[in-house]
This record gives sequence, C-alpha cells and structure tokens, in this order.
Amino acid sequence: MPRIGCDVSLLVVGSIALDSVITPFGETADDPGGSAVFFSAAAALLHPVQVVGVVGDDYPLGALKRLEARGVDFAGVEQAEGESFRWKGKYSYDLSSRETLDTRLGVFAGFRPKIPRAFRDARYVFLGNIDPELQLGVLDQVHEPALVACDTMNYWIQSKRDVLLELLRHIDTLIINDSEARELSGDWNIYRAARWVLTHGPTRVVIKQGEHGALLMDLERTFKVPAYPLEEVFDPTGAGDAFAGGFMAHIARTNDLSPANLRLAMVYGAAMGSFAVEEFGIRRFDTVTPGEVEARVRAFRDLVHFDHPETVA
Amino acid sequence: MPRIGCDVSLLVVGSIALDSVITPFGETADDPGGSAVFFSAAAALLHPVQVVGVVGDDYPLGALKRLEARGVDFAGVEQAEGESFRWKGKYSYDLSSRETLDTRLGVFAGFRPKIPRAFRDARYVFLGNIDPELQLGVLDQVHEPALVACDTMNYWIQSKRDVLLELLRHIDTLIINDSEARELSGDWNIYRAARWVLTHGPTRVVIKQGEHGALLMDLERTFKVPAYPLEEVFDPTGAGDAFAGGFMAHIARTNDLSPANLRLAMVYGAAMGSFAVEEFGIRRFDTVTPGEVEARVRAFRDLVHFDHPETVA
Repeated sequence: MPRIGCDVSLLVVGSIALDSVITPFGETADDPGGSAVFFSAAAALLHPVQVVGVVGDDYPLGALKRLEARGVDFAGVEQAEGESFRWKGKYSYDLSSRETLDTRLGVFAGFRPKIPRAFRDARYVFLGNIDPELQLGVLDQVHEPALVACDTMNYWIQSKRDVLLELLRHIDTLIINDSEARELSGDWNIYRAARWVLTHGPTRVVIKQGEHGALLMDLERTFKVPAYPLEEVFDPTGAGDAFAGGFMAHIARTNDLSPANLRLAMVYGAAMGSFAVEEFGIRRFDTVTPGEVEARVRAFRDLVHFDHPETVA
Repeated sequence: MPRIGCDVSLLVVGSIALDSVITPFGETADDPGGSAVFFSAAAALLHPVQVVGVVGDDYPLGALKRLEARGVDFAGVEQAEGESFRWKGKYSYDLSSRETLDTRLGVFAGFRPKIPRAFRDARYVFLGNIDPELQLGVLDQVHEPALVACDTMNYWIQSKRDVLLELLRHIDTLIINDSEARELSGDWNIYRAARWVLTHGPTRVVIKQGEHGALLMDLERTFKVPAYPLEEVFDPTGAGDAFAGGFMAHIARTNDLSPANLRLAMVYGAAMGSFAVEEFGIRRFDTVTPGEVEARVRAFRDLVHFDHPETVA
C-alpha cells in the first residue's frame, strides 16, 4: 500500500566509470560513463536522482558537478584511494558489435554499496549491473521501496547464477538485454525467455533489443516500443542505462504503477536511449531540453499508432 | 484520380513452387509455396486475387483448387510441359537463418508472364520476386493501376542492378527485406537505406525486418509495426509474401491510399505474416477465420498503443 506523503525518491546503485570509446566517427578518452552515470544523466531530465557508487581519487569531479546542478545527488558516492573504473571499447563499422579492449576495475573491485540514511526511504530503486551479491546487499539497506528494478549481464549469469536467481525472488522488474534473457533462460525465443523470467520472481520484465527497441512483459500483457528511427548513431554506449533512467524516472515522477503508465514509462525510456546514442557518452544530455523530450515521445506515438475502425471507441 | 465504378481488382505475378522445408519441428516435401501462392493464400482472407504464374505438368492442382474456392482466380496460371519450380531449404535450430539445399527452376526458367485480358485493368498489382525484366514486362501489359508494389532479392540486386533501377522508376512501392535494402543502397543504416530507395523512384518503401516487424516509409513519415509476439514459430517460409498479401489486399478492399489506411494495411500485413509462420507452408491459411484476423489486428493495437497526456486530443 503506497505510503501517503512520503518522499518519492529515485535511487540508483551502479558503476561510475571513465570510458574510452572508439567508433567509426571518432574516439573519446576517459569520458564519464558507467551505469549510474548514464542512468542519472537521462533520469534527471524527469526527476531528481540519488546515486550510490564509488570513484577513484583521479575522477574528474567537474563532470559530476554538472549533473549535480541538474538534480543528481551524489551524497552516496564514495571517493576511494586508487584508480577509477576504466573501460575501453571499439565498435564495428556498423555499430552492431563491439570489442572490449581493456577493463580496469580499480576502486570498483572493492565496491560495497553503503546506502546513506537519507537515501534508504527511496520509493524507486534501480540496481545497475554489478555483482548480484552486492545488489542483494542493497535490498537489505532500503526500507520499503514500491518498485525495485535490476539489470545484470552475461558475466554474472555465468559466474553467479545461484545468487542471481536468489536476487530475482526479491525484485519487481528485471531489465536486461535480449541476449542476456536468452542466456539466463536457456531459451532462444524471446517471449518464452521472458515468461521464464516471470516464473522466477519478477512480476514484469523489460527486454532491451538495441536498435529494435524494447519489450515490457508481465504474465498478461506485452508492450513493444520500437527504437527511434535515427539516420545517425554516434555511440551506442550507455543506451540501455539511459533507457532504464527514463523508464524509472517517469515512474518516480508520476508515482503511478498502472499498466498504462508503465507503457508510457517505456516510451520515455526509449526516448532517453535514442538521445544517448546521438553523441559520445552522456554529452547529449547536457543539451536535451524538456521540450525535446516531450517532442520525441510524441514522435514515438506518431511512429507506431494506427487507427482500426473496429477498435476505435 | 480514382476511376469511379471500376473493378478494384488485385493482381499478383510471381512464383508457384513446391517447397521442401526442414525445420527443428519436422519437414515437408513438395508442399505448395512460392511468392504468388503465399501472397494469395493470405490476401484471399480479405479480397479476391488474380494470379499470373506457371506450373509444370506435375503440380498438384488440388492445392490451387482449395485457394480457388476462397476467391483466388488462377486464370492467369499456365501449365507448361516439364517439372514445377522446386525449392528445398533447411532452417537453423533457432530459425534465424536458413540454407538452400536445392533449387530446380523447371518450367519457371522459361516463365514469361502473360496477363490475361480480363486481368489487365487490375487496380492493385504486386510483382513478386522474379527477374526485374519480367516485372517490367508486366507493367507494359497492365493499363492504369493505382498502385504497383514490387519485391526483389539479392540475386537480382547483384546480377541485374541496372534493370532493377529502371523498374524502380516505374513502381510506387518497393517491399523488400532489410538485408536487401542494405545491399541495394550500399548503406547499413536502414533509415538511410530507405531514403535511398525513395530517391530512386518509389514514393514509399516497406522494409520487412523478420522477427522485428516492418517499416513503412515515405519522405515525410515513418511507421513501424512490430512482429506479433509468438512463442512458437514453425516455419518462417513465405512470411514476407504473406505480409505483402495482407498489405495489398487490405488496400484493394478499401480502395484507399490515405496514409492512415496504409498504416492499417501494414498491420494486416504483419498479421498475415504471423499466421504464415504458425504452421508449415500455407497450411495455417486453410483454417484462419476472418474473426481471427480481426482479433490479431486488435492484438497489434494492444501491443503498441500508449496514451500520452500531452498528445491525447
């Protein structure tokens, strides 16, 4: 039962990284990235965000200050002695695949999320892709969230499957890529894979399909949002976390878990994913205006809506 | 300007084949197939169809008789001396790829479409995937179609590119697979590839994306219909031609080329594509009822529609 008058806050726990990305259009070095950063940059366009994470003593705090000015609260980010988490990757000419050139965990290797007292009442919680043991540890620290959503990746599916299955029993919404859903369920059919997830804990699952959009499924209904048609994609890095940011932030700002509102949240997610890929890293979120966000949501409506004489009221 | 009182007939010119298909779920031998057959089986659920094609003297005419009883007119099908066109293919375990095991053109090698006088006033014409020279030859024989749509394949893109480019200047709608659009345009971005097509003749292009649905684009608008979520897919053969059948038949029965109606035609196409894959060959079309078709169109609406407070009138 929703608590009346409580703080409708949105918490994300995830990585804060420095990304070096090579695409056919150029390259970046040590640009702010990581799941918590992409999530926050997108979400902050709709709702304030509380972040828990860790950075090294070499992290360029100016980047975080810019997000802070937009409503992101980094009070849960610890600055530890050592190097920040760094990832370096290179995309193929058509951006359809990428190769990891280097991963240096740095201080992220010792990350044990500590949720500040002020964040423990968060009503909406997103657990970015980290060790499922740490994700479970976060759940022990938050009080009574209305919705906990969670991401993961192939690495954890393979190396910590049992812990991940335990985690699934404690979350509401799993948000994963299509390839991860297939690997987790052992089923190549994405709808059967989704059904598998729904019989292992979560009441709903969001399956991200890259350039083909995303699916929201529960045991009764399926909703599909396509990806926004873009003739130019610069850098796919972080699109999935930006999607999660838009999805969760729309839910938090409306504090409404009705099926119709979750569909709209999917569209805000897809809109944020489409902005994310238009420039390197989180740069596009420095310039996107609320008006552009709304215009893109309207464009999604125009992309998929059709009238059917029999079904028009 | 639409001619008032004219016959709103729908003509398809394409292959009539015998398919032998191996999927993880079983196999068939010498089952009726080919573009004109899949097109007609789907289209006939919505509108009568006129077929021009060729079969050998070994073709099981009973299969065509069943379609005839449902409103398909085979007066344009010649029975020639020799073997019918045969195709044999095998799908991968997840149906995502297929290998052609054998192709025997038989009488199809000498196919020169002759449009019967009674079919020449067809208002809507679909040119299935055959030699673009033959497709051009059909255009010389029809009088004043309101819309000509056309399919092609990689083989013709590679071997008869100039003729294909000439054909494009004479058709309204190109209906092709995403991989073909990429190959034809030389651009891997599907939206840029579509734009390329739109600057080479057609006023609109339909790009079939298999399990990811289909796009309808003109220079002003893009419409996306996803594929229907199926937990069981038996045989993907012919889904694209069934899609074209649903698309064209809805246009023919409504005789309405408005943008809104073309969107609905895309959904009928996607519905027919989804029925096609539920059983081997055209078998599912023996049992689909008009009520099931309408129910599936409603299901597509439920799959993609969302309310956005700002855009709701």
